[in-house]
Amino acid sequence: MSSSDIFIGETIGTAVLILLGGGVCAAVTLKASKARAAGWLAIAFGWGFAVMTAVYISAPLSGAHLNPAVTLALAIKDDDYSNLATYWGGQLLGAMIGAVLVWVTYYGQFLAHLTDSEIVGVPEEKVAKAVEAEEPGAGPVLGVFSTGPEIRNAVQNLATEIIGTVVLILAILTQGLNNNGDGLGVLGALITSFVVVGIGLSLGGPTGYAINPARDLGPRIVHALLPLPNKGGSDWSYAWIPVVGPLIGGAIAAGIYNVAFA
Amino acid sequence: MSSSDIFIGETIGTAVLILLGGGVCAAVTLKASKARAAGWLAIAFGWGFAVMTAVYISAPLSGAHLNPAVTLALAIKDDDYSNLATYWGGQLLGAMIGAVLVWVTYYGQFLAHLTDSEIVGVPEEKVAKAVEAEEPGAGPVLGVFSTGPEIRNAVQNLATEIIGTVVLILAILTQGLNNNGDGLGVLGALITSFVVVGIGLSLGGPTGYAINPARDLGPRIVHALLPLPNKGGSDWSYAWIPVVGPLIGGAIAAGIYNVAFA
Amino acid sequence: MSSSDIFIGETIGTAVLILLGGGVCAAVTLKASKARAAGWLAIAFGWGFAVMTAVYISAPLSGAHLNPAVTLALAIKDDDYSNLATYWGGQLLGAMIGAVLVWVTYYGQFLAHLTDSEIVGVPEEKVAKAVEAEEPGAGPVLGVFSTGPEIRNAVQNLATEIIGTVVLILAILTQGLNNNGDGLGVLGALITSFVVVGIGLSLGGPTGYAINPARDLGPRIVHALLPLPNKGGSDWSYAWIPVVGPLIGGAIAAGIYNVAFA
Amino acid sequence: MSSSDIFIGETIGTAVLILLGGGVCAAVTLKASKARAAGWLAIAFGWGFAVMTAVYISAPLSGAHLNPAVTLALAIKDDDYSNLATYWGGQLLGAMIGAVLVWVTYYGQFLAHLTDSEIVGVPEEKVAKAVEAEEPGAGPVLGVFSTGPEIRNAVQNLATEIIGTVVLILAILTQGLNNNGDGLGVLGALITSFVVVGIGLSLGGPTGYAINPARDLGPRIVHALLPLPNKGGSDWSYAWIPVVGPLIGGAIAAGIYNVAFA
Repeated sequence: MSSSDIFIGETIGTAVLILLGGGVCAAVTLKASKARAAGWLAIAFGWGFAVMTAVYISAPLSGAHLNPAVTLALAIKDDDYSNLATYWGGQLLGAMIGAVLVWVTYYGQFLAHLTDSEIVGVPEEKVAKAVEAEEPGAGPVLGVFSTGPEIRNAVQNLATEIIGTVVLILAILTQGLNNNGDGLGVLGALITSFVVVGIGLSLGGPTGYAINPARDLGPRIVHALLPLPNKGGSDWSYAWIPVVGPLIGGAIAAGIYNVAFA
Repeated sequence: MSSSDIFIGETIGTAVLILLGGGVCAAVTLKASKARAAGWLAIAFGWGFAVMTAVYISAPLSGAHLNPAVTLALAIKDDDYSNLATYWGGQLLGAMIGAVLVWVTYYGQFLAHLTDSEIVGVPEEKVAKAVEAEEPGAGPVLGVFSTGPEIRNAVQNLATEIIGTVVLILAILTQGLNNNGDGLGVLGALITSFVVVGIGLSLGGPTGYAINPARDLGPRIVHALLPLPNKGGSDWSYAWIPVVGPLIGGAIAAGIYNVAFA
Repeated sequence: MSSSDIFIGETIGTAVLILLGGGVCAAVTLKASKARAAGWLAIAFGWGFAVMTAVYISAPLSGAHLNPAVTLALAIKDDDYSNLATYWGGQLLGAMIGAVLVWVTYYGQFLAHLTDSEIVGVPEEKVAKAVEAEEPGAGPVLGVFSTGPEIRNAVQNLATEIIGTVVLILAILTQGLNNNGDGLGVLGALITSFVVVGIGLSLGGPTGYAINPARDLGPRIVHALLPLPNKGGSDWSYAWIPVVGPLIGGAIAAGIYNVAFA
Repeated sequence: MSSSDIFIGETIGTAVLILLGGGVCAAVTLKASKARAAGWLAIAFGWGFAVMTAVYISAPLSGAHLNPAVTLALAIKDDDYSNLATYWGGQLLGAMIGAVLVWVTYYGQFLAHLTDSEIVGVPEEKVAKAVEAEEPGAGPVLGVFSTGPEIRNAVQNLATEIIGTVVLILAILTQGLNNNGDGLGVLGALITSFVVVGIGLSLGGPTGYAINPARDLGPRIVHALLPLPNKGGSDWSYAWIPVVGPLIGGAIAAGIYNVAFA
C-alpha cells in the first residue's frame, strides 16, 4: 500500500466511522429526531455497524485500521513503525470530517435542541447538571461528539478505557489465527463489528467506550470549533483519558499477543 | 442477464423490499398491531432484513439492484447505461406492488387506525399536527408508505439523503474489492443489510432515510390511489427530495469510487 | 437420508424450534420471568435464533425442513412427494414435544401467571377481553403456545399468513441459486434465521406470523391437553387459518419459483 | 495443543467471557451506568457477543471450550478425559479473573449503587425483597456476578438449566456435521454466539441461564471475597444448581449425539 492510499483510505474510513457513530448518538439524543430515545442497544448496534461499514469501504485502500490504538498495536506486534504517522494523520483528519458531516446531517436537530427554551426529553440529571454549570443543554450535545464519564474518577476511567481496548485489539490480533485458509477477509469486519457491539453493551456504561483516540479527539476539536449556540464547554480536562487509555490498551494487547499467541 | 429477467427480478425483489420495509412501519405504527411501538431499533432491523431478503430472492435474476440510485451508480462506474430504464421500470413497479401488499397484510389495522374516533397511542405531537391540519390521523399513515422530514428544510433534507446514499453505495461498490476469491456473493447481501441497519440507526433521524427513489415514490403513488378513509394528503411538495437526493448521492459515490478506488 | 433419520431429525429439530420459539413468548409474557415485557424485537430475534439453532441441529439428519409448508414447497418444486408424510409426522410430534418442554421450563411462571388473583402486567385490552369472555388470564397464555389475530377477519388473516409464507419459502428456494460453489450450507441457516426475524418484524403484527402449520397446531393440541388452571379455551375456531394459510403460501412460492426462477 | 496452551487459552478466554458477560449485567443494572435499564434484549446480545469475542480470542490456544459442561460433553463424545482437569482449572480461574475485571471496570458504579441511601431505579419487587432480608441493594448486585431464580423451586430450576444446556451443547456438537469442507471454523463462533442469544431470550426467564458451571461459580466466589459494602449474601444455597444442572445437560447432550447423530 502506498502512503497516499493509506492516508486517503484512513481519512475516508474514519470519516464514515464517525459520521455513522456520531450519527447514532445524534439520532438518539437530539430533539426532533425520529430515533430519539431509542436506547443504549441502538447506540451499541449503531457504532458496531459504523465500524463494519467503514472497514469495508476503507479496507481495499489502507487495511482499515481507523483507530490509532490499532495502528500502534500492529506496529508493536510487527516491530514496524514506518507508517504510523500516516495512519494517525488520516485517522484524525477523517474523524474531524466525520464530525462535521454529523453536524450537516443533523443541522436542524442541533438548532432545535440547543435553542429551545424548554429542553424536552433530556434526562433530568443531565438537565440539573447543565443548569448547575449554567450551560443550558450543553451536556447532551457534547455527547454527540465525544465521550464522557458518568462518574469522574481518572483512575477508574482510565482503567475502563484500557480494559475495553485490550479486548478490542486482542480480538483483532487473534483473527488471523482463526483463518484456516477459508477467507476470513470478508467475515473479519463483520466479526469485529459485533465485538464492538459487545464492548459497547458490556463495558460502555462508565465512560461511553471511546476505545479509539481519534474517535474522541477529532470530534472534540470540531465541537470546540463549530458555531453552535449554547453548546457549552468541550470538557478538555477529560480529553486526555480517551487518548492515553486506548493507546496503553493497544500496547498491552500487543504485549499479550506476542507473549501468549505468537 | 436478459431484459425480461432483469425486469422480473427487480419487480419481485423491490416488491419484497417494500412489503417488508413498509410492513415494519405498519407493524410499529398502526393500531391493533402486535408490534405497535416496538421502537426505532425494530424499524432499522426490519428495513435491513427487508433488503437482505429481497436481495437473496432477486439476485439470481437481476443482480438485485432494487434501488434506482444503485443502478445509476453502477452505470456511471461502468459507463454503461443500456439497462437503466429496464431496472428503473421494474423497481418502480415492484415498489408499488409492495405497497399494495402492505395494505392487504394490514387491511384491518389501517381501518382500525384511521376510522376510530379516538386515535389511541399516536404520539401527541403528531395528533396535534393532524388536528391543526384538519387531517385526523393522516400523519402516521403516510409514514407507512413514504418518508417525511421531522424539520422541513429542503437544503438539510436533501443533504441528509445525499449523505446517507453516498455511504450506502460506497459500501456496495467497494464490496467487490473485499472479495479475495472466497465467495463474497452469499455474504454480500448480509453485509449490505447491516449497512442499511446502520444507516437507519445513524442517519435516519432527520428524514427517515429514503436513500432509494423507488422506495419513496412508488408507495407515495399507492398512498394517493388507495381508498383509505381520512388518509390525508400524500405530501407531494416533499416528494422530489427522496428522489433527487439519492440519485445525486449515487452519482457522487460513483465519482468517489472512480477517483479513489478504481 | 433414511426415513428414520428424517423422522428423528424433524422431531428433534422441531422440538428445539418450538422450545425456543414458544420459550421466548413465555419469557416475554409470563409473570415472574426475567425477560418480561422485553418487547416485540426480542420476540422476533428469539424466533429467528430458534430457527437457526433448530436448523443447525437437525440439518445433518433430515435437511431441516421443520415446517410442513417447506416440505410441501420442496415436494412441488421437485415433484416428489414420497417423504411428505414422514416429514409432516416428525414435525407435528416435535412441535408437541417442544411445547411440553416450554411448559416444563416455565412451570412455576405459568402457575404464578394463571393462579394469581391479580393479573399483573398484562396489557389492559387483553385483560378486558379475558374478563368479558369469563376466561381469566387465558389470552396471554394461549399466546405462548399458538398464534391468534389482533383483528379477527378470516380473509385478511389468511392473506397475511399466505403472504408471510410466500416470502419465507421464496427466500429458502432461491438460496441454492445464490451458492457460487462457496459453501452456502453453513451460512444458509443464518440467513434464513434473519429472514424469519424480518418476517416477524414486518408481517407479524396482524396474526403473530405462524407461517408454519406444525408450529401452530402442535402447541395448540398441547395447550388443550395440559393441566393448566384457568387456561381458557384453545381457540379452535381460528386453528385452521395458520394451517391452511402457510400450506397455500408454500404452494404459491413453489409455483413462482418454477415459473420465474427454475 | 499443549497443556499450558490449554490452560492459558481457557483462562484468557473465560476471563474475557465473564468480563463482557458480567459487564453487560453491570451495565444494565448499576446506578450511574449509561446503559442502565437497557433491557433483556441488551443482556441477551451482550452475553452472545461475549461468547463470540472470547471464542475468537482463545480458539487458537485451547479450542475455546470456556464451559466445563462443553468440556465434559466433548470428553464423553470422544471418550477421552485426559485434559478435563486442565480445562476446568483454566475455566474457573478465568471466570474469577473476569469477575474481578468487571468490578474494576464498574468500580464507581458499584459504590454509587450500594452506598446510596436512596436506591434509584431498582425494580420494586427486588427492593422489597432486599428490605425484607435486611440486605439493602444486595439483590441486584449479586445478579451482576451469578444467576438466581425468579421462583425458587429446585426441580424446575434444575430442569431449566439442564434443558438450556442440552440445546447449547447439541448445537455445538452438531456443528462439525454442517461443515461441508468450507471453513466452518470462522463462522462457528458467530453461530454459537447467536445460539447463546437465543437461549438467553427464550430460556433465560426463570433462572437467568447459567448453562455453564464456571460462569456461575467463579463470579460467586469473587462476590463472596470482594470488599463491597452492603453487598448481601452470595446465596450459596442455590449455587449447586447452576453447577450440577449444566453438567447433567452436557452429559445428556453427548448421549443424544452419540445415539442419534454419530
